[in-house]
Amino acid sequence: MTAIKYVYTFGGKTAEGKADMKNLLGGKGANLAEMCLLELPVPAGLTITTECCTAYYANNCQLPAALMDEVWAGVKNIENIMGLKYDDPDNPLLVSCRSGARSSMPGMMDTVLNIGLSSKTIPGLIKKTNNPRFVYDSYRRLIMMYADVVMEKSEGIEPADGKGIRKRLDDMLDKFKESRGYKSDTEIAADELLELANAFKAKVKEVLGTEFPDDARAQMEGGIKAVFKSWNGKKAISYRRIEGIPDDWGTAVNVQAMVFGNMGDNSATGVAFTRNPATGDNQFYGEWLVNAQGEDVVAGIRTPNPLNDDTKNEQNKHLHSMQELMPETYKELCAIRDILEKNYHDMLDIEFTIQENKLYMLQCRVGKRTGVAALTMALDMLHEGMISEKEVVMRLTPAQLDELLHPILDSADEKMHKVIAKGLPAGPGGAVGKIALTCEKALEYNKAKINNILVREETNPEDVEGMRAATGILTARGGMTSHAALVARGWGKCCIVGCDAIDINIAAGTLTIHGEKFKEGDIISLNGSKGWVYDKEIKMIDATENPRFQEFMRLVDKFRTMGVRTNADTPEDAQNAVNFGAEGVGLFRIEHMFYGKNSEAPLAKLRNMIVANTTEERVKALNELEPYIREAAKGTLKVMNGKPLTFRLMDPPLHEFVPQTEEKQRALAKDRGLTYEDLKARIDALHEVNPMMGLRGVRLGIVYSEITETQFRALFEATAELLTEGYDPRLEIMVPLTISVTELKHQKAIADRVQQTVEEKFHVKIHYLYGTMIEIPRATLVADEIATVAEFFSFGTNDLTQMTFGFSRDDVNSIINTYKDEKILPNDPFNTLDQQGVGQLVKLGTERGRSTRPNLKVGVCGEHGGDPASVEFFFNAGFNYVSCSPFRVPVARLAAAQAAIKKM
Amino acid sequence: MTAIKYVYTFGGKTAEGKADMKNLLGGKGANLAEMCLLELPVPAGLTITTECCTAYYANNCQLPAALMDEVWAGVKNIENIMGLKYDDPDNPLLVSCRSGARSSMPGMMDTVLNIGLSSKTIPGLIKKTNNPRFVYDSYRRLIMMYADVVMEKSEGIEPADGKGIRKRLDDMLDKFKESRGYKSDTEIAADELLELANAFKAKVKEVLGTEFPDDARAQMEGGIKAVFKSWNGKKAISYRRIEGIPDDWGTAVNVQAMVFGNMGDNSATGVAFTRNPATGDNQFYGEWLVNAQGEDVVAGIRTPNPLNDDTKNEQNKHLHSMQELMPETYKELCAIRDILEKNYHDMLDIEFTIQENKLYMLQCRVGKRTGVAALTMALDMLHEGMISEKEVVMRLTPAQLDELLHPILDSADEKMHKVIAKGLPAGPGGAVGKIALTCEKALEYNKAKINNILVREETNPEDVEGMRAATGILTARGGMTSHAALVARGWGKCCIVGCDAIDINIAAGTLTIHGEKFKEGDIISLNGSKGWVYDKEIKMIDATENPRFQEFMRLVDKFRTMGVRTNADTPEDAQNAVNFGAEGVGLFRIEHMFYGKNSEAPLAKLRNMIVANTTEERVKALNELEPYIREAAKGTLKVMNGKPLTFRLMDPPLHEFVPQTEEKQRALAKDRGLTYEDLKARIDALHEVNPMMGLRGVRLGIVYSEITETQFRALFEATAELLTEGYDPRLEIMVPLTISVTELKHQKAIADRVQQTVEEKFHVKIHYLYGTMIEIPRATLVADEIATVAEFFSFGTNDLTQMTFGFSRDDVNSIINTYKDEKILPNDPFNTLDQQGVGQLVKLGTERGRSTRPNLKVGVCGEHGGDPASVEFFFNAGFNYVSCSPFRVPVARLAAAQAAIKKM
Repeated sequence: MTAIKYVYTFGGKTAEGKADMKNLLGGKGANLAEMCLLELPVPAGLTITTECCTAYYANNCQLPAALMDEVWAGVKNIENIMGLKYDDPDNPLLVSCRSGARSSMPGMMDTVLNIGLSSKTIPGLIKKTNNPRFVYDSYRRLIMMYADVVMEKSEGIEPADGKGIRKRLDDMLDKFKESRGYKSDTEIAADELLELANAFKAKVKEVLGTEFPDDARAQMEGGIKAVFKSWNGKKAISYRRIEGIPDDWGTAVNVQAMVFGNMGDNSATGVAFTRNPATGDNQFYGEWLVNAQGEDVVAGIRTPNPLNDDTKNEQNKHLHSMQELMPETYKELCAIRDILEKNYHDMLDIEFTIQENKLYMLQCRVGKRTGVAALTMALDMLHEGMISEKEVVMRLTPAQLDELLHPILDSADEKMHKVIAKGLPAGPGGAVGKIALTCEKALEYNKAKINNILVREETNPEDVEGMRAATGILTARGGMTSHAALVARGWGKCCIVGCDAIDINIAAGTLTIHGEKFKEGDIISLNGSKGWVYDKEIKMIDATENPRFQEFMRLVDKFRTMGVRTNADTPEDAQNAVNFGAEGVGLFRIEHMFYGKNSEAPLAKLRNMIVANTTEERVKALNELEPYIREAAKGTLKVMNGKPLTFRLMDPPLHEFVPQTEEKQRALAKDRGLTYEDLKARIDALHEVNPMMGLRGVRLGIVYSEITETQFRALFEATAELLTEGYDPRLEIMVPLTISVTELKHQKAIADRVQQTVEEKFHVKIHYLYGTMIEIPRATLVADEIATVAEFFSFGTNDLTQMTFGFSRDDVNSIINTYKDEKILPNDPFNTLDQQGVGQLVKLGTERGRSTRPNLKVGVCGEHGGDPASVEFFFNAGFNYVSCSPFRVPVARLAAAQAAIKKM
Repeated sequence: MTAIKYVYTFGGKTAEGKADMKNLLGGKGANLAEMCLLELPVPAGLTITTECCTAYYANNCQLPAALMDEVWAGVKNIENIMGLKYDDPDNPLLVSCRSGARSSMPGMMDTVLNIGLSSKTIPGLIKKTNNPRFVYDSYRRLIMMYADVVMEKSEGIEPADGKGIRKRLDDMLDKFKESRGYKSDTEIAADELLELANAFKAKVKEVLGTEFPDDARAQMEGGIKAVFKSWNGKKAISYRRIEGIPDDWGTAVNVQAMVFGNMGDNSATGVAFTRNPATGDNQFYGEWLVNAQGEDVVAGIRTPNPLNDDTKNEQNKHLHSMQELMPETYKELCAIRDILEKNYHDMLDIEFTIQENKLYMLQCRVGKRTGVAALTMALDMLHEGMISEKEVVMRLTPAQLDELLHPILDSADEKMHKVIAKGLPAGPGGAVGKIALTCEKALEYNKAKINNILVREETNPEDVEGMRAATGILTARGGMTSHAALVARGWGKCCIVGCDAIDINIAAGTLTIHGEKFKEGDIISLNGSKGWVYDKEIKMIDATENPRFQEFMRLVDKFRTMGVRTNADTPEDAQNAVNFGAEGVGLFRIEHMFYGKNSEAPLAKLRNMIVANTTEERVKALNELEPYIREAAKGTLKVMNGKPLTFRLMDPPLHEFVPQTEEKQRALAKDRGLTYEDLKARIDALHEVNPMMGLRGVRLGIVYSEITETQFRALFEATAELLTEGYDPRLEIMVPLTISVTELKHQKAIADRVQQTVEEKFHVKIHYLYGTMIEIPRATLVADEIATVAEFFSFGTNDLTQMTFGFSRDDVNSIINTYKDEKILPNDPFNTLDQQGVGQLVKLGTERGRSTRPNLKVGVCGEHGGDPASVEFFFNAGFNYVSCSPFRVPVARLAAAQAAIKKM
């Protein structure tokens, strides 16, 4: 005998559990117990713990030996409270058997209702209710559910033709109704239901090879096992994967006395939200059905009626509300709504059943809501005195806040259309526009003020202008950190990448998706937050207008202690980020000026530098390049006046800047007075087998120290000019790809020399911080030495993730997908920091850095700086700031505030 | 006043220092002190410590304030012992001023002799010696040395025409001799020497702008400073770089009373080794010159005479030996030889001077020797009872042992020829042969039994057969871990890579080196241990025949505790390694069978697998491939019978195995019944931006689990067959590129399934070890988890170095060279493990692994397994074994033994 208690009972205004026992009892079980403690009308029942589920799986899918004894003892308690008796021929108790995980997984696991009906109990129930129609209707429902859930799915039977038993029985029901000309289930008579039930049982035997069990006790055990089994059903597993729910949490099982909404017109069933989950308005909001069981509402078999006036809309305003038909019970329900909100301090999602005018509560849980609704409710509840400021801040998930920042597709309209392809949600929000297959076309549309979606195999730096001109971006290849994804996210632009269903034929000007052909100019819609593509024009909504946004962000900043900066390479981006609350720029990439708009002139100079044959030629080209860098730096420093701005010295390998096509190479050769062969040889010499680990970052500045010198001169001169003009530039310069303190010393010697020259020339004193990226594993290991020279660290977690995993982000997208499918990785480490691995290096680097420089400023400027889970990690690792793309700034602020609150 | 003692005196059978104070006094100073303590005749002197040198540099190249006072106090001691007086007009003491670092740096730093000669002391010295010729000869030598060392080099003067003062004065001397018809310096008369000295002083003034100092005290200070300065001379720095001597060690300065070998025919000077440094024979071996100063012997200005009969050879047998001319003094010297060897227990390199029949010892130090000599001496001294077995083992450096294992160029013959190009010493030993520019040519030569050198831009796996056929390999590109280097080292084949001076024109069949053109068939010679190329046929010697080698290795294994295995992919390599003492195979790369000889058939099957469109096609191709893997595995398991053999599952990305040329691709397409376009598309899809971090290693086995299944089946069946045949196969299988324990579990599930099938088929029980490579930084961080499944770790320090540094070994060769030149890295981390960075991860991984599996077996199979410094590190990190290429096995055994002895 085990000493572990697996069964918790509830009912009769008392319970063994309560709301905060979710981990053990699951959400449903804990809340049923809580409602009992609140003295609400709840049918009695029992909850089998999640620990039992874990034990079941650990025990090779066998129930713990003593479990059923505990269950039958719990059933005895139900019988006492309900005045019924399970498997009793005269006064039978029927029960439901439902899953209930810690975290709601709606529709992902299985439920069986009406358990306990058998040839032994049916006659007594008919006699007692005097309602044979109700009994047979319940019976055929039991057969349909039980055959599906317990006898087929939980046994792992997969029909060869893909047609499950439930579908077969549904077809029989439909055919029967058709044959009689019935439109609704309620038209079927009692004897017809009995006839159907018998036909169902025969079909079950025929298809599944076993009899539908006529033993109530066997039904009970089968139901419990089936619920446990459904925890590892395919649907449930993939849902957990998406939602990040651990596989080992397990589900609880709730066995509860049945109450019946299908006992006639004085019976009903319904679901409701205590406030409007779409808008957040303080309105009771729900749907109900007379003479029905709960599954009818949820499954959408019948169009449900509005609960009350507030719930009426164009589609359902002709239907009767509960407020109208059952005003007394409705009032009772409204009172319960108040009790629940006061108890839970939150908006709740409830399920109820009315059996012969008596109201029963079957479920309550914190309700899901849109971002807008979450914001509205949280602030309303604050003003209603229901929750504290701290709770307000915790009430919005960062993802919900993000929703508010981008124009999005109208989800109601989305539901009306079919998703034709899926990719990775690389840039949030929605976009609708005409297909443009080239950057030229995107620019053309943009000029004509026509919304357009740039559709490409993949993008590269030469496409940046076209990308800016596009309303949204869709690519066939690339991962969450591909070029397209990084650029789009930086701009807050809707973008889907890695959508491998799309097939582009630029010559023909067509795009084929799963065989369907589209032309340039056809309209498509993207849901960039989900990675979904539609071939229709979906309605858009703009959520940024919410006036409560600013109020919420003020509360957020009350609790936030970690700084939030932005990654910005232009004055516009910087200004945009400041508007979103950025307190500085954490990453200004000098090479940005060689991409996109107005890049032609500086890029030409850079190319001259690259193809130079001698140091003199190189220095000449660099001298011509310098003014461009100076101006770019100056413009952004001016916008950030008084706020810190971190410049990163040039990082990418030089071959990224040379033209890739022969035509362009020939043009460049001609321009430079070189033979094509000479130029080609020079370009070929730049070729690298693994460019990610080649001549880039600080290595460039060491091999060609003149490149470093030019950059420092430009930055110092920009600063000196601004000082002269009365501004307050807060210059920070960092070295990328550092592996050793010796690199920093080498570059600093150049900086010191240049600084002196500039200070003498401008008669100013330049104060700046000299720091480094920490993005190579070795840098974290020798961070103590590095910090003797570096005044700040900025973790480059993209590269650090690449090197720590040995994952080239350009190549491993499909590998990561396989790894997630095979449960080898819990998620994409380029999206959410791998705390177990990379996180160790981040912590180590931070600790070691501060061991030699206690006041070392530490930040992050990788993509993870905008990922809420990662932000929390960085906060706990003692970071001074995170830096992220402008549109992620509010999200990072919220994540930082929530991390601080959690730690309080 | 500083409390630090900077000056240590010696002389008169006593000394303040002794032999074990080398760090403070430098080698020379410590040994001079030791010889005094041994009561040998040593001219008195003083040593200025290396700490003073460090202080000098720390103090912006200023001598510590109190130093000269200490020096003059020391000089007083010299005066007392020698009965002379510095700067005295009647009885002047002259001194030498010599460098002396901790570790010998012969010829790299500067020396000034005869310091103290001035217009004040010259007349008195002439009067005293009655030998004006000697005095003026000493004076002109002082001027020549002092002007060069103190006045020019140490002042950082670099003559515009590159012609230094020393060269100018040498020219004057030559011209003078020419004008008089003198053949030898000794013919120059006293007055002529005075005339020359005056002319020298005028030239010095003219060229350098300052007067040669006529003040003995100024000369002393100048000499000391110049020696300190020479520590940072270009020659010294580059020597330190090569020898791995830290820059901050500094040099000591020895100021010592001059004794004169140039006072006539009863005076002489000489150098000797207490045993033959080339052969190790127990013969006193040296050279001497009558009436000369030490520099004359060392500088090779005059052909020196043999010291004794044992030293006579074809070139010098007509010259008189000291044994003949000064038998008494020679006997005295022989006695000193015995005293020194008994004291030092080693072969010594000594310098002596005879001044008017009186013998003085000027230097003794442990003598440099060849590998053969080191071996012979060590064993002789053991048998003579002079040293212990432990000392024998410590007496050979691993590099010396390595010398013994390869046929090498005869260094005497090498000296006669010019090195025409230099590259990286990728494969040790020497090779002489005809130039082959293609593999076909190399094979043709090989068939005709003609030694040949394969000269290529770089090599790739398709060249392996040609590489095997070549006597030596020379490539223009690639680093120490490039394909050519790895393969050649694996075979112990002489190989030079990255020799960028060579320019190959295959069409013309020519090779151009620095403008000189060679044809195929011309003979060149390679010194693969140094990376030197000759355009002549250099003589070869084979050192492997030494019968003492086995005796030495038996002693080595007495002390060795860590295992040594080999990397081998064929029965031949494995057998070779066993002969060299390998105790197992640490790395058998399954993909090896797709390279080189007999690879066509399995490679064709592999390609079928790669171009397969469906899983069925892939499985079919794999089934056809399996027998090849099984046979390859079985052959080597048989050779290793009873010894462990670790197979690594396939590691490289699939695109490495598809043909690269269009022609071959078309042939493959035709063969596979595909269109060229289809095949090309398939090959293009395999393309990766950074293949090093893409779809390879265990990722292949997860994406295509059938590849894993085939390999396990082949390995298990090979084992099962051998068990059936009565063999004792010790199978170990490891997974490459692991980042998470989940990968190991995934692959193990496949292995378990296959194992059961094979065991049932063969009715045997297979025992094997399941382990993993640890070669990705993340693996070291989660090694505790990984070790719950892995039964052993094999560190892949090549890849671990790549990822920890973010260095692609295919791309960063020139970067690493720049980094070494700029002192950013101390050495190439692909040659010697970066203990500071990568080493931390190695230790961490080992500790964490053993935290969950205390008896975890840990080894290394990267290139570092054969690097002595790295072997010592692995020993100290608690490794069970290292694995290296067969020819490195003895070296690794020695390094492991030495590490164990050091730790005792």
